[in-house]
Amino acid sequence: MALFTRREYESRLQVVKHRMNQQGIDTLIVTDPANMNYLTGYDGWSFYVPQAVVVALTLDEPIWVGRGIDSNGARLTCWLDEAQIRAYGDHYVQSAVLHPMDYVGEVLDEFNLVHGYIGVEMDAYYFSAYAYQRLVRALPNASFVDATLLVNWVRLIKSDQEIAYIQQAGAIVTRAMYTALEVIRPGVRESDAAAEIFRAQIQGTEEYSGDYPAIVPLIPSGVRASAAHLTWADRRYEVGDSVNIEIAGCRHRYHSPLSRTVVIGQPEPRLAELAKVVVEGLATALAVVRPGALCEEVENAWQSTIQRHGFIKPSRLGYAAGLNYPPDWGEHTASLRAGDKTVLEPNMVFHMIAGMWHDGYGLEMSEAFRVTPSGAEVLASVDRCLFVVGEERYQGATA
Amino acid sequence: MALFTRREYESRLQVVKHRMNQQGIDTLIVTDPANMNYLTGYDGWSFYVPQAVVVALTLDEPIWVGRGIDSNGARLTCWLDEAQIRAYGDHYVQSAVLHPMDYVGEVLDEFNLVHGYIGVEMDAYYFSAYAYQRLVRALPNASFVDATLLVNWVRLIKSDQEIAYIQQAGAIVTRAMYTALEVIRPGVRESDAAAEIFRAQIQGTEEYSGDYPAIVPLIPSGVRASAAHLTWADRRYEVGDSVNIEIAGCRHRYHSPLSRTVVIGQPEPRLAELAKVVVEGLATALAVVRPGALCEEVENAWQSTIQRHGFIKPSRLGYAAGLNYPPDWGEHTASLRAGDKTVLEPNMVFHMIAGMWHDGYGLEMSEAFRVTPSGAEVLASVDRCLFVVGEERYQGATA
Repeated sequence: MALFTRREYESRLQVVKHRMNQQGIDTLIVTDPANMNYLTGYDGWSFYVPQAVVVALTLDEPIWVGRGIDSNGARLTCWLDEAQIRAYGDHYVQSAVLHPMDYVGEVLDEFNLVHGYIGVEMDAYYFSAYAYQRLVRALPNASFVDATLLVNWVRLIKSDQEIAYIQQAGAIVTRAMYTALEVIRPGVRESDAAAEIFRAQIQGTEEYSGDYPAIVPLIPSGVRASAAHLTWADRRYEVGDSVNIEIAGCRHRYHSPLSRTVVIGQPEPRLAELAKVVVEGLATALAVVRPGALCEEVENAWQSTIQRHGFIKPSRLGYAAGLNYPPDWGEHTASLRAGDKTVLEPNMVFHMIAGMWHDGYGLEMSEAFRVTPSGAEVLASVDRCLFVVGEERYQGATA
Repeated sequence: MALFTRREYESRLQVVKHRMNQQGIDTLIVTDPANMNYLTGYDGWSFYVPQAVVVALTLDEPIWVGRGIDSNGARLTCWLDEAQIRAYGDHYVQSAVLHPMDYVGEVLDEFNLVHGYIGVEMDAYYFSAYAYQRLVRALPNASFVDATLLVNWVRLIKSDQEIAYIQQAGAIVTRAMYTALEVIRPGVRESDAAAEIFRAQIQGTEEYSGDYPAIVPLIPSGVRASAAHLTWADRRYEVGDSVNIEIAGCRHRYHSPLSRTVVIGQPEPRLAELAKVVVEGLATALAVVRPGALCEEVENAWQSTIQRHGFIKPSRLGYAAGLNYPPDWGEHTASLRAGDKTVLEPNMVFHMIAGMWHDGYGLEMSEAFRVTPSGAEVLASVDRCLFVVGEERYQGATA
């Protein structure tokens, strides 16, 4: 079952080629796994070896280049013709002599693409400094151009089918968050809570299977809740713990992230106070969202609200999210922060995350939303509050 | 609770400094998250932004450099003194103007490390081509040296405490594999099986919590079982399916990987035949393992066995494994393959994986093992056979 129509893939390709043309790029070597997927449908956990999708102005279809044992995966997941699949032998893998980028050079030679301007994603996760050096060596007659984020910016506005998957991810994360709120109890091991959350993320709903999110559940508790990106530990939850939960639902690699904080026992007054401010700040910021508004205006609404209460948040308020692979579900394009003048348009999707860490305490609360023709559609359906867990059941605090 | 003694960290550091000295490196900028962890204990899902550990011959302790919101995580997980923690502001994150590597340059300046030979991990996953360019620009008076795998090679021989964690991971993966063999049944959705497997991986055992493995469960089934690295789909298992299961147990980031294939219903004769050969080949290869043997000798024993039965496996038979982060639990150093003359020593750990994919069918069977003073210690305890699932329960086939 194809996840998107061939027409949709062709239309994505056309937009990318248009931008290549504008930027004077003849051939684009895409190595970001999300961008590879976006253009070809390729989906496999093979990004731990070098691989690429090559888009050339002179070619109708992209070329998939990867490791031999992954070429069947390409045949099964890509819309490309068999003639566009190229695979390197295993003697290229983690070799002291050969490098897969040598082979990419050979493929470009075969397709007559070794001259002109070649775009590469210089700052993509899996495009190492060495891979670039080898590629430059393999293509001595080409001129290299930095095309980081070229495809990412095309991904910023989603199609209706992409939105449908993100909405399904929203349903999945709603279920996963309520699972988290059910399992976090005094005496429960953090890892056992993480296990149940992960299970809910992958099970998804009756109708929609979950895919693996690009980030594992981040659920630091106790003193570790003052840090942003810690995972779980051997410890058991205790009364007095505050647990920050940052998770996502994922459907066919499309994410809908969500954060909440849950407190076991009575929340400290300063935390409860912070939560109230954050709830108000998020609501104010979401109210500003509409086509035509700027990213920085959304953040500014948030910032004015919390500053009125004496708080500041130095890190950005959010970022574009959607299709992705580990280590990040963010798209690295538009951010909700001062200075970002990206104009909101329908079917953009952002994760608005109020992560506030102070000495000794912290709180996370977030919503993923879609820009609609008239405002914001929040993708998950979880009460926006500081959750409080007693001995038996969670309950939403009136924050 | 520190996972290792300070003495152990200091001893690792000493070995790394010794190799730096041998290779003429004054300062090493470590960006591989596993290497950062190995040298400092740092453990957080923050490798989606640039970060580094700096080791200098002139400094007693390394320097941790990361994003502001991750510095509390560094304080909580590293053995380093507070004076060794440096964090960059959020305006460096995904900015069009600033780059975290500019800040790394400033830190090196502060510690008087901007001259001489600086080693960088040119082919590490999260060290992008652009990060390297910015670092070079930030340090105009330094000479750069490729130090890819310098720390990885130090990791090749594990300490007894590291082995203890890997053995615990072996207990975890044993449980997770039996969970997989319990849940894979006709009519079950692949995602629901993945959810139960993942849960078992994270729950671990009563005694040992599981950590997230560096690779999600790879469980392609049906026609997708002919591909190597596909994850799960919406489909439900059917009688006639063959499911390749590749998973790992993980304990404090230390992995013990394991693969088996399970068939629903009667296995095709060619698959059952292949399984018998693979079981024999793995046993033959494991019997060769002992200190003093070469990596290529182990692979050669395997290759001769399967060739005698008319099979070939063009990809390598295995690789060193242990401490790691997504996207790979392999260490990228020694491989069990022709030409690899690494001499086996006690406390090396390998994942020996017989992944055999042919047109329309495939099989995976593997063992992680430790080199002992006299042979090989297999880390998991799962029957080495092609598993066959009926309608009700799994049973090991006599392979």
